[in-house]
Amino acid sequence: MPAKLEAPEVGATVAGEATLNGLSTLGEGRRRVVVERVTPEIDGGRYPIKRVPSETVIVECDAFADGHDSLACAVRYRGPHDRQWREAPMKHLVNDRWRGQFTVETVGPYSYSVIAWMDRFGTWEHQLHKRVEAAQNVAIDLLIGAALVAEAAAAAPGEPGDTLRGFEQALRAGDAEIGFSPELARLMGLYLPRRYATSYERDLKVTVDRPLARFSAWYELFPRSASPEPGRHGTFRDVIARLPYVAGLGFDVLYLPPIHPIGRIFRKGKNNSVTAQPGEPGSPWAIGSAEGGHKSIHPELGTLEDFHALVGAAHEHGLEIALDIAFQCAPDHPYVTEHPSWFRARPDGTIQYAENPPKKYQDIYPFDFESEDWQGLWHELKSIFDFWIAQGVKVFRVDNPHTKSFRFWEWCIGELKREHPELIFLAEAFTRPKVMHSLAKLGYTQSYTYFTWRTVKWELTQYMLELTQGEEKEFFGPNFWPNTPDILTPQFYPGQRSVFLTRAALAATLTASWGLYGPVYELLQNVPVPGREEYIDSEKYEIHHWNLQTPGNISWFIGALNHIRRENPALQSNEGLRFHRVDLNYAEQTQVIAYSKATPDYENIILVVVNLDPTSVQGGWIQLPLAEWGLSGPFEAHDLLSGARYTWSGEFSYVELDPAAMPVHILRIERPETTEPLVGDYA
Amino acid sequence: MPAKLEAPEVGATVAGEATLNGLSTLGEGRRRVVVERVTPEIDGGRYPIKRVPSETVIVECDAFADGHDSLACAVRYRGPHDRQWREAPMKHLVNDRWRGQFTVETVGPYSYSVIAWMDRFGTWEHQLHKRVEAAQNVAIDLLIGAALVAEAAAAAPGEPGDTLRGFEQALRAGDAEIGFSPELARLMGLYLPRRYATSYERDLKVTVDRPLARFSAWYELFPRSASPEPGRHGTFRDVIARLPYVAGLGFDVLYLPPIHPIGRIFRKGKNNSVTAQPGEPGSPWAIGSAEGGHKSIHPELGTLEDFHALVGAAHEHGLEIALDIAFQCAPDHPYVTEHPSWFRARPDGTIQYAENPPKKYQDIYPFDFESEDWQGLWHELKSIFDFWIAQGVKVFRVDNPHTKSFRFWEWCIGELKREHPELIFLAEAFTRPKVMHSLAKLGYTQSYTYFTWRTVKWELTQYMLELTQGEEKEFFGPNFWPNTPDILTPQFYPGQRSVFLTRAALAATLTASWGLYGPVYELLQNVPVPGREEYIDSEKYEIHHWNLQTPGNISWFIGALNHIRRENPALQSNEGLRFHRVDLNYAEQTQVIAYSKATPDYENIILVVVNLDPTSVQGGWIQLPLAEWGLSGPFEAHDLLSGARYTWSGEFSYVELDPAAMPVHILRIERPETTEPLVGDYA
Repeated sequence: MPAKLEAPEVGATVAGEATLNGLSTLGEGRRRVVVERVTPEIDGGRYPIKRVPSETVIVECDAFADGHDSLACAVRYRGPHDRQWREAPMKHLVNDRWRGQFTVETVGPYSYSVIAWMDRFGTWEHQLHKRVEAAQNVAIDLLIGAALVAEAAAAAPGEPGDTLRGFEQALRAGDAEIGFSPELARLMGLYLPRRYATSYERDLKVTVDRPLARFSAWYELFPRSASPEPGRHGTFRDVIARLPYVAGLGFDVLYLPPIHPIGRIFRKGKNNSVTAQPGEPGSPWAIGSAEGGHKSIHPELGTLEDFHALVGAAHEHGLEIALDIAFQCAPDHPYVTEHPSWFRARPDGTIQYAENPPKKYQDIYPFDFESEDWQGLWHELKSIFDFWIAQGVKVFRVDNPHTKSFRFWEWCIGELKREHPELIFLAEAFTRPKVMHSLAKLGYTQSYTYFTWRTVKWELTQYMLELTQGEEKEFFGPNFWPNTPDILTPQFYPGQRSVFLTRAALAATLTASWGLYGPVYELLQNVPVPGREEYIDSEKYEIHHWNLQTPGNISWFIGALNHIRRENPALQSNEGLRFHRVDLNYAEQTQVIAYSKATPDYENIILVVVNLDPTSVQGGWIQLPLAEWGLSGPFEAHDLLSGARYTWSGEFSYVELDPAAMPVHILRIERPETTEPLVGDYA
Repeated sequence: MPAKLEAPEVGATVAGEATLNGLSTLGEGRRRVVVERVTPEIDGGRYPIKRVPSETVIVECDAFADGHDSLACAVRYRGPHDRQWREAPMKHLVNDRWRGQFTVETVGPYSYSVIAWMDRFGTWEHQLHKRVEAAQNVAIDLLIGAALVAEAAAAAPGEPGDTLRGFEQALRAGDAEIGFSPELARLMGLYLPRRYATSYERDLKVTVDRPLARFSAWYELFPRSASPEPGRHGTFRDVIARLPYVAGLGFDVLYLPPIHPIGRIFRKGKNNSVTAQPGEPGSPWAIGSAEGGHKSIHPELGTLEDFHALVGAAHEHGLEIALDIAFQCAPDHPYVTEHPSWFRARPDGTIQYAENPPKKYQDIYPFDFESEDWQGLWHELKSIFDFWIAQGVKVFRVDNPHTKSFRFWEWCIGELKREHPELIFLAEAFTRPKVMHSLAKLGYTQSYTYFTWRTVKWELTQYMLELTQGEEKEFFGPNFWPNTPDILTPQFYPGQRSVFLTRAALAATLTASWGLYGPVYELLQNVPVPGREEYIDSEKYEIHHWNLQTPGNISWFIGALNHIRRENPALQSNEGLRFHRVDLNYAEQTQVIAYSKATPDYENIILVVVNLDPTSVQGGWIQLPLAEWGLSGPFEAHDLLSGARYTWSGEFSYVELDPAAMPVHILRIERPETTEPLVGDYA
């Protein structure tokens, strides 16, 4: 007799395994179902997908078995507090592809997988049906069925067990019709023991973040420019006074550039000049001085107590404070003397400053992630997050994460979120696509994007399809910014108000998360450093005083955008985006972009139409998917910016936008109040 | 001080791991390169890709690191006899994608993966270059470089070590130019120790089969119909006498339907009638009787000694014998009484016969792969292969493998090929695509395909693109059969000779492996069972006597196809297939299909043109990729079937084919003998 063997575990490669006399140590050999190609699955299950509560995960797989027997599949999933798997049924689509879904509810890590098994009762019922149709003798088949029902009855509790025993007796008595009873099928689905089920070889992961991870509006300002008195260094207290303004614009997150002591050695002056003049404040990203480092507060901003007051006051205004974490040091940062091994030494004994040859950044020392003491470095860097989390901060914008070790980020964010699943990390990674994606996979919640440089219609369309239709939608959280303290793109240089309006509207409606660097944006600041995509006289190097009431400012428009976003769930997700054809004179109208976002039930449909040409009136015929939206006959397009209501009917509607007046429509598609039956209802 | 920690292994999911006080047990944290998305990789590395010796594996991956330093990547691979990894360099393509390749040489399992590391010398040289260009002081940089060179010198043997020390001295002496020496770069590439290299998380597998796995021509015949005397049961000795004929047609593999004793209980008669008349031979697929089972020979065919003689004689004719392994039993198979637990019992004590309700196949008992004694069953089934391997058989055609346990196949083929990597398994799986693919992934070398039902131009084109351009080309080995004993498709019913010619030519030239069921094919048998795609009076149920010299037979054509295949390497691979546009009157000519196959160096280019219309002359303008083929000016299209030579020039050539004469061109594209320079040479 052959020695005991066990069959290949799904996932085990048998051929290469050590064997003895041709016998392997394998698993249960009677599992007949094969489960493959589960989606979503990022890099073979290496990385989690991302969701926020109440979002669904649609799971598909290939599943099949030998022969012609029926099989059954279910999604298994488990939330952070579940001790056991939960199950959701999967349905066969076509070509051995199955689909099921589950909804996540709790912030924290979820797991999911697929389980499949031979549907013994379904197979029997299906075959009985064909035999009965062919008028064959089914006496033996009824006995086979009765045995299955008895097996289920033995596994069922009292009442359903009794019911099943009743069915069993009927089958034994020769009642073929009762084999097709829906109640029998239901009970058999519940109680017939599964034999030799196949579990997909990997448990896949979902990171469930809190809702703000998906739907957020960020406002960035320099606290030192927040003083109401020109010439005085702004403070946290001044920022507290600014909170009603920011909250009034409808933002959720108030993001502050680094708030730490600023280095004095090689300090940069106005417009990034190599040497600062006495009294110049320096760049907040040159972190660290005798006053302290990444866990200290720049004395002129206030005290830790002031910071606590700011966090608390922000909370009262419905705002969260996001801090900028920039892992780099000014030459006078305490780390430099306390931990010289965390920096790279040059042969002359000096420390290697940042450079991108031939450019030198002598005011910045990068950390050396190849340090012998990398463990000490990792712990210290993580402790910086721990420190600010302890001060009430839960949202971090990380400066240039792609110039720090990827393995560090995976470890650090993983450790932090294990204790604090509510944390949100925004990656300031303006870099190559695969690097951006890697940071998202390794743990970053949101990322800056290429939106800033996508300005014409086909670019915007292609980029949105990439972000929302491809695999990256499962893990990459785009956050659209029209500007940042580092970036003023050329479309703003002419200073056209229309460009400021359209770029904000696109950012606020194309994705669910967006942000602005203000108040320069709403005050229409437009002058670059000649030859560079940067603001002249940037706040990065000097203190400004802004008059928020400057005539012509567009803060009302920013506030309206955020208000509309809050009122319309379609704008709170990255699902449901669809671009619409706009034609003029029988050709594509490339100056007008039109797209809609809709909730899955089409209860909320927002149509956005933007004139991308800041100089001329442009219009076109927009083609709308009325059948998909369940519309026939006249309906209303309600402009949420102007309040105007347009009664449209038919697939094509003409829209024209004047950039000198308002280059944007944000239209809510509203069904007629009379509940006239739709065309489909007559069918 | 924090306790020792180690960084995440590539592939380890850190966030979910058990940790203590925030410290994890992780790997080296200084590995800065990320390696992802290696291709080819089947189902996350679960299954091997397939190759035959001298084929290449082109490996690509995404690789990147933090910051701006240069990195380097290599493919690592290892054959069945290699004790250590070998390496092949990878080059950066674009967008962080890298590519390298290796060639397999030995039959057996290979492994491959990717390793990547920071290119410390390349980074230094690149930065030095930019500094020198900017006329910066590079004194410190030369010292940094000298230290790197010293590190390499310490790792290098005698002479290169001395050379490196010379370079080091020159750098220390301030010679910047020597930093750009190609010899220095070469030696640094060889000897500078790699630090903190990242290996891709999975070792991927290649099954390297012998060449016959890729390039094969199969001929199927019924030995019992091989007798030269009408009415006498054919024997293995008769098959030996038939070998010169089969070898003369250029086939490599002679495949025999099951050669085992045929069951008597419920034996099927002529044309699959439910009861055989006395003396009817039964179907060879109803295996087993009192004379024995799967390890026995049907007595009327001969003895085991005769079989050995056949195997040996076939070998002398350049043919291999392929056996048909059909894992099912006639009711009188010895297994049925010896191992009743291998079959499913019905409540009345009888054994469950095969059925597809309402159809019943009472002459066949399937094995029950859910048997309690599945281990005994698996071992016995494997031992059937072992038995025939011991008789010299290395090629198996497996009957309906998709109705047997997939796990069994993976174990069985894996075990067999571990000892006998030269084995070839052809899956007779006319079933759904994912099931066919699964069998290929689990171990089957070749598979029957949908070719039999792909008859019009767009179907053939689409199917070939799927087979040769998609991921399945890495593991699925198509074998094209125009007919089988089970399948006579409708296009043959009218009996047009042109259809027999074109279907054979398509099968023989579209893929590298093809097969025929003869001699019915070359004798143009065309009469179906009414209403079924099967031969009437099929050899499956009765013995035939064939006159191979029947006038009008097309054996000369079959022989010519195989001869052309052997002479032209382009036809021996599934790479290099390309379809060509055929136009007539400024529209697509759908009745004429044109495609070429070429070796990678374009030394051998075969252009096939087929008139798919069996009733009318059809012609069209074929557009050829002359620039890609390196052709300009006139060239020759040499018809290897007729011997005719056409002198063509220019991108479009007109071809016309008469189905009544010859509906197929197999043209070798031949360069002019004069070695006139090509246009490109003047550039």
